[in-house]
Amino acid sequence: MEITSVNNNLVKETVKLQQKKYRTEKFILEGFKPVQEAFNAGIKLDYVFVLAEKADEYAFLGDKTILTNEAVLKKISTTESAPEAVGVGFKKSFDKSVLKTAQKVVLLENIKDAGNLGTILRTSAAFGADAVVLFGDSVDLYNPKCVRASVGNLWKIPVFEIKDFEELKILFKDYVRIATLPRAKTYLKQFLPEFPCLVMFGSEADGLSRELINFATDAVKIEMAENVESLNLSISCAVALYKIFEL
Amino acid sequence: MEITSVNNNLVKETVKLQQKKYRTEKFILEGFKPVQEAFNAGIKLDYVFVLAEKADEYAFLGDKTILTNEAVLKKISTTESAPEAVGVGFKKSFDKSVLKTAQKVVLLENIKDAGNLGTILRTSAAFGADAVVLFGDSVDLYNPKCVRASVGNLWKIPVFEIKDFEELKILFKDYVRIATLPRAKTYLKQFLPEFPCLVMFGSEADGLSRELINFATDAVKIEMAENVESLNLSISCAVALYKIFEL
Repeated sequence: MEITSVNNNLVKETVKLQQKKYRTEKFILEGFKPVQEAFNAGIKLDYVFVLAEKADEYAFLGDKTILTNEAVLKKISTTESAPEAVGVGFKKSFDKSVLKTAQKVVLLENIKDAGNLGTILRTSAAFGADAVVLFGDSVDLYNPKCVRASVGNLWKIPVFEIKDFEELKILFKDYVRIATLPRAKTYLKQFLPEFPCLVMFGSEADGLSRELINFATDAVKIEMAENVESLNLSISCAVALYKIFEL
Repeated sequence: MEITSVNNNLVKETVKLQQKKYRTEKFILEGFKPVQEAFNAGIKLDYVFVLAEKADEYAFLGDKTILTNEAVLKKISTTESAPEAVGVGFKKSFDKSVLKTAQKVVLLENIKDAGNLGTILRTSAAFGADAVVLFGDSVDLYNPKCVRASVGNLWKIPVFEIKDFEELKILFKDYVRIATLPRAKTYLKQFLPEFPCLVMFGSEADGLSRELINFATDAVKIEMAENVESLNLSISCAVALYKIFEL
């Protein structure tokens, strides 16, 4: 199949997926690596627009491939320069029952930066998290910037959006619940983790809410030079998870 | 002083600083925090455009303040939405003699992503680095995206650009030189650091060059789940520096 007109209907449908309100079922994947990783991970792909010259490298997609040109790729992608492929995949859903046996869970409260979220998912997968919880009002997991920053790790661990504190309380009542706080008394290096554990991070702007600080059973802070105020959220996450999850 | 026309000459001069070729002496600072941190750190400021309504909050700048409007701020800034202030500061230079007594130095080879570089400078300052070396062909340290991502930490530690391998060899001949490599035999957790040490990171795309791998006295890898290929560069740096520098 070949589509070369930017006015084609499927092109228009794909462009819509750049907006959250249209991403109820599907999402877009930009570039070779995300498409390949999604395919290898068994993510159901609807179709993939591929630059005609690069068709050979996408042979693994079989009849999912739609040959196209740079103009179409530029139109359907969200990056500054057009990627060589843009795919559309079906969102993956996970069952919360996995939390019954999970040992290592990450919670992010009110996370707003899609790039940070994608990076944190990549890091969480690398450091052995069993699940990630997006609590409160979070950026969309399938935001193209988040998908890109996760570099093919978006679907490797279950991610659950939880808005209701009562539900959170029930799901994690038997967990060790660790708040990462700049004013905690315990340094990360001294902390001895127990499992199952939930490691909780607030947004860069506001930190953890009073609600979640009270819900915590423990609090830790990351050792830092005195003349530096804070770390990037994805950096705090990485250091804390590396230490607490101990692969 | 007040400037409200986007055609004013000083506005035009400031816009030029968005391009590397004009940043020989000066650079731009976008937003309250970077301006404040630069001021507190003793960075010499040339002038700061401030949204007239916010003038009170910038009283500390004294006669460096130029009152202005949103149109001018939009024109001179590089962010999507205009910040409330854009300052122009003089670049700070450091003397390489600090490397004679430095204990903890970070080396980044061919780093291309300005956001990553800024984040790494912030992290390096937080974890007690004495200096950072940009080796090879690196993105400009004073790129506005790097300045923003460093969140006021750009000038807290000396940063040196070194292009010549022979110079590098002489400067760090007495250091323990650690290559971070996905295929190293030693895990980061097992590694016992000695000082002075130079911790070396390659670019995300290419990793460390053969030249620097051969120059290393040690090599470490970060423990990761098998189904994850790699980490974001700023994340690898953070975890390695946290462990090796041990604040």
